[in-house]
Amino acid sequence: MSSENKSYIKDRLTALRQVMAKAGVDYFLATSSDYHASEYVSDFFKVTEYLSGCTSDNVHLLVSKEGAWLWTDGRFFISAAGELAGTEWQLMKMGEPGVPTIEKFLTDHLKSGQTLGFDGRAVTVTEGESYKKLAESCGAKVNGSFAPADEIWTDRPAMPSHSVYILPVETVGEDMESKVDRVRDVLKTRGCQALVMAKLDDIMWLLNMRGDDVHCNPVALSYLILGQDTIDLFIQESEITEDFRAYAIQHEIALHPYEKFFQELSDWKFEGKVFLDPDASSFALKEACAKAAGAENLVNGANPTTAMKAVKNEVELKNSRKCYLDDSVALCKFMYWLQKEIGKQKITEISAADHLDHLRSEIPGYIELSFDTISAYNANAAMAHYAPTEESCAELKPEGFLLVDSGGTYMNGTTDVTRTIVLGKLSRQMIEDYTTVAVSNLRLLYARFPYGANGIALDTYARAPFWDKRQNFNHGTGHGVGYILNVHEGPQSIRWRNANVVFEPGMITSDEPGIYIENAYGIRIESIVECVEDETNEFGRFLRFDPLTYAPIDLEAIDPSLMEKSDIEKLNDYHKKVWEKVSPYLEGDELEWLRKATRAVEA
Amino acid sequence: MSSENKSYIKDRLTALRQVMAKAGVDYFLATSSDYHASEYVSDFFKVTEYLSGCTSDNVHLLVSKEGAWLWTDGRFFISAAGELAGTEWQLMKMGEPGVPTIEKFLTDHLKSGQTLGFDGRAVTVTEGESYKKLAESCGAKVNGSFAPADEIWTDRPAMPSHSVYILPVETVGEDMESKVDRVRDVLKTRGCQALVMAKLDDIMWLLNMRGDDVHCNPVALSYLILGQDTIDLFIQESEITEDFRAYAIQHEIALHPYEKFFQELSDWKFEGKVFLDPDASSFALKEACAKAAGAENLVNGANPTTAMKAVKNEVELKNSRKCYLDDSVALCKFMYWLQKEIGKQKITEISAADHLDHLRSEIPGYIELSFDTISAYNANAAMAHYAPTEESCAELKPEGFLLVDSGGTYMNGTTDVTRTIVLGKLSRQMIEDYTTVAVSNLRLLYARFPYGANGIALDTYARAPFWDKRQNFNHGTGHGVGYILNVHEGPQSIRWRNANVVFEPGMITSDEPGIYIENAYGIRIESIVECVEDETNEFGRFLRFDPLTYAPIDLEAIDPSLMEKSDIEKLNDYHKKVWEKVSPYLEGDELEWLRKATRAVEA
Repeated sequence: MSSENKSYIKDRLTALRQVMAKAGVDYFLATSSDYHASEYVSDFFKVTEYLSGCTSDNVHLLVSKEGAWLWTDGRFFISAAGELAGTEWQLMKMGEPGVPTIEKFLTDHLKSGQTLGFDGRAVTVTEGESYKKLAESCGAKVNGSFAPADEIWTDRPAMPSHSVYILPVETVGEDMESKVDRVRDVLKTRGCQALVMAKLDDIMWLLNMRGDDVHCNPVALSYLILGQDTIDLFIQESEITEDFRAYAIQHEIALHPYEKFFQELSDWKFEGKVFLDPDASSFALKEACAKAAGAENLVNGANPTTAMKAVKNEVELKNSRKCYLDDSVALCKFMYWLQKEIGKQKITEISAADHLDHLRSEIPGYIELSFDTISAYNANAAMAHYAPTEESCAELKPEGFLLVDSGGTYMNGTTDVTRTIVLGKLSRQMIEDYTTVAVSNLRLLYARFPYGANGIALDTYARAPFWDKRQNFNHGTGHGVGYILNVHEGPQSIRWRNANVVFEPGMITSDEPGIYIENAYGIRIESIVECVEDETNEFGRFLRFDPLTYAPIDLEAIDPSLMEKSDIEKLNDYHKKVWEKVSPYLEGDELEWLRKATRAVEA
Repeated sequence: MSSENKSYIKDRLTALRQVMAKAGVDYFLATSSDYHASEYVSDFFKVTEYLSGCTSDNVHLLVSKEGAWLWTDGRFFISAAGELAGTEWQLMKMGEPGVPTIEKFLTDHLKSGQTLGFDGRAVTVTEGESYKKLAESCGAKVNGSFAPADEIWTDRPAMPSHSVYILPVETVGEDMESKVDRVRDVLKTRGCQALVMAKLDDIMWLLNMRGDDVHCNPVALSYLILGQDTIDLFIQESEITEDFRAYAIQHEIALHPYEKFFQELSDWKFEGKVFLDPDASSFALKEACAKAAGAENLVNGANPTTAMKAVKNEVELKNSRKCYLDDSVALCKFMYWLQKEIGKQKITEISAADHLDHLRSEIPGYIELSFDTISAYNANAAMAHYAPTEESCAELKPEGFLLVDSGGTYMNGTTDVTRTIVLGKLSRQMIEDYTTVAVSNLRLLYARFPYGANGIALDTYARAPFWDKRQNFNHGTGHGVGYILNVHEGPQSIRWRNANVVFEPGMITSDEPGIYIENAYGIRIESIVECVEDETNEFGRFLRFDPLTYAPIDLEAIDPSLMEKSDIEKLNDYHKKVWEKVSPYLEGDELEWLRKATRAVEA
């Protein structure tokens, strides 16, 4: 592509530099985040894409009078190089030899007396404070409220705005007052009078509300200030329905415009200490709190809501079990359809995904997909962030594997499930690897463990079958799952490093080992599990997992001779449960398919 | 026992209270520690025993004008109650309902203006600082250099004093200069000019010296101040041999009297920042450093020596392999003898231990036991801290288990090994439990894992066989082992909680799962393993363990039908190695015994 075609990038940089000069900013830094570190970023927040044309997910950019530099990671080197070609942007390949980190680059370039500007609303506390420290070490300073896009991005898309809605206590199991009381109790034990929150799913959970402002996440853009006697919610006027206004009045929630949050916060009349979560707050939020309450009155810690939200109550669990069963039935119908039709009609990665998405959308209470369905055929499944396009997507043939990772959000839960489905002939290595993944998934699913065990202790159940064969996979084994909320939530996770949260009964977590062979295939089997009480005896209090997901593990890719006898028992036991749970919802050929797919195997 | 018989306790408390009154101390606190938090405390340091008559290991005591209170834990409730009977001492049973902690007790009793006195040399930084904070919150203050025993304990035993010796580089594999350089490099990266050390095994390691001042630990009472150009060792004059004085001159180690350490330290001329390990330093040490260097110039961190010492070099590993083989041969001879003689001659727990200790003492290079041999028959083995006495010890019968946990320190290594030996008839449950312990031991022994895995990830290999059966054991699975040093050393450990140190090739660690059935039996199988490089491939860098210990797992207590096929393979593979390693050192009946003891089993 010739540079003429991208003259708009030049114009945007020129406009930016004018605003920088006016504001006395020597280096402008921007990241590809929204104001809430959401997993998906809507167009309104895509400042880095506007300025550079680069559509990568993980971008940091720097602009000075002399140049423009864009950092992204290995997943995006090829696409970013194309997108930046013909512009003055220089691609900085993160992690490549000789490529400085943005911190190193700034340390080398920032001069005494200069100013580093960024929009502190889109930068985390940790990151913002490290830039501040770095700048000070260079004799420079930061301007954390420099937001040039507000000025130069004249055709900026609107901020997402969708009506919010209330979830009744029959759906969520605990009324807002009870949740608020529990959070206030925690604040008291920490000596705090108030909590300032920016974490959208936590705010939704606390107020029993939902929205639709982030792709696949049923959350509303919002901020919350919770006092010991007050609740102040900042939300776009356009999102407030009559029902919600009545709810707010009834529950004494004071409503403020979302756009006024930082201005109001910096003048807020706090009494005593203020609690905030540095891992879930922006630099601008902390600065405004420090201005309002005094830096010495800020108390750092994880939002109390995060741990509370992770432990689902009995209503949430009961609803989730039903939700997961309906979702599992849809997946089973899809698997039946795919294995029946493959080789008979043209099916692509995308048309397969569309079929599954359609089956889900017919489930009562369906709201939206919980993430964009991943449908990846053979070698495509070995790419961590593969997303097929209509033009490029693979046509499925009656051989190899289709990996499908998908889920939905419904009025009774949020689901997530991965099955790797056999379409036809497999190599010996494919069968060996699939068997390892299945054993790994089952060992974690059937784990029993003492109360106090964390995600590192649990991960070894899933990793040992790989490690034993000198294999591994480069992602976490498990993440928390929201309830009618984000499909990825904390604080618990299952990983072999950095997973120190203790598992509690009521936590819903994924169990998703995989293996990825470059240019060949990818296999992942993901079931969602519920942590439950097992038995308490003279040796202690034991917990275990119960499955929420009931869908067959593909026996066509299993070699029982590679399995321990106890692993075969686990497989057969799981399939027995799948049959018992799902068979009442199927009939005819689908039922026969399930019978065969869940048959017991022998060593 | 009548109170008259313990009138000396009354006299000692009277003398203590006189010294307290003179010094203006309202509460005197003492712990059963020496100045270096050693695992074994010599008589000189047993101030709590002198004052109370209580011989428990884990004691905190408090004395005021009005009373005398002694805290100890459940292991010692019965013995302490007897020892304190007939005195004014009140036993405070730690952890029992209604019994305040010492902190709670102090908070309730310390009044404004009062003084809490303790000997800061025998209190850790963490503990001392928490008492200081607690006292301040009561409006009281602490006197951390109140050591009344120096005054009132007129017939105090002498401080241990034994000649030190030097280990040649052929024995330790790295000369002192090289170690000192490495430590100085770490200090530089932390911006420190000096390191003050109280950790005896670390000082011994750094200077390639050994001593004999702590029971079973070949260490000398000492302190060290390491500067960028200076080495100052504080050691008792009586311990310095001619050889050591020459070594000190050659290596520019300035020698100072041990007794003068705190006095000299508090006037030390430090330049710049001073590094110290708060987990391996006393309150008095930190206070003196703060006085000398300024509190703002203290940098906290683990002694750099601790991590370096844990990774054994090639010479240490080569010597250890030979040492462990000799030690294993002695253990095999003992096992043969015990199983041959049981029922034929009178054998007690103690006489069995004596026989094993004698076999070890005949190994060339033997220095001492690495800890007092644990020899516990049946139900006695279920008690965590069982130590038989000549009077009370059990006579072994040709039934059940003898658990023997033992080791030696030699001029080529320090060993530690546990085998639970079948003496005759076993119950079904004993066989099931023994099989679980064996499987657990073998799974960890044969673990393969990526670099970066810590002791929590590894522990699941050993715990899962127990957890699966809703069993557990209440001690760590693995600890680091010293080289011609303490049998217990850090920083690595294998535990299901609080074991965050990453395993490195060259670390020597125990693998010692067990199960303890109260009033019935205890089973533990401990082998020592060396962490080694396995393979590096496209999935990452893998490590594994190689055994150092070669002694049979008792097949008479194994039921292979309870084992997975891969566990049987591990057992047979380990026994094949035991045969290959040990058989060249045995002959006649001993050799035949080993052949049978290491035979392959089938499912």
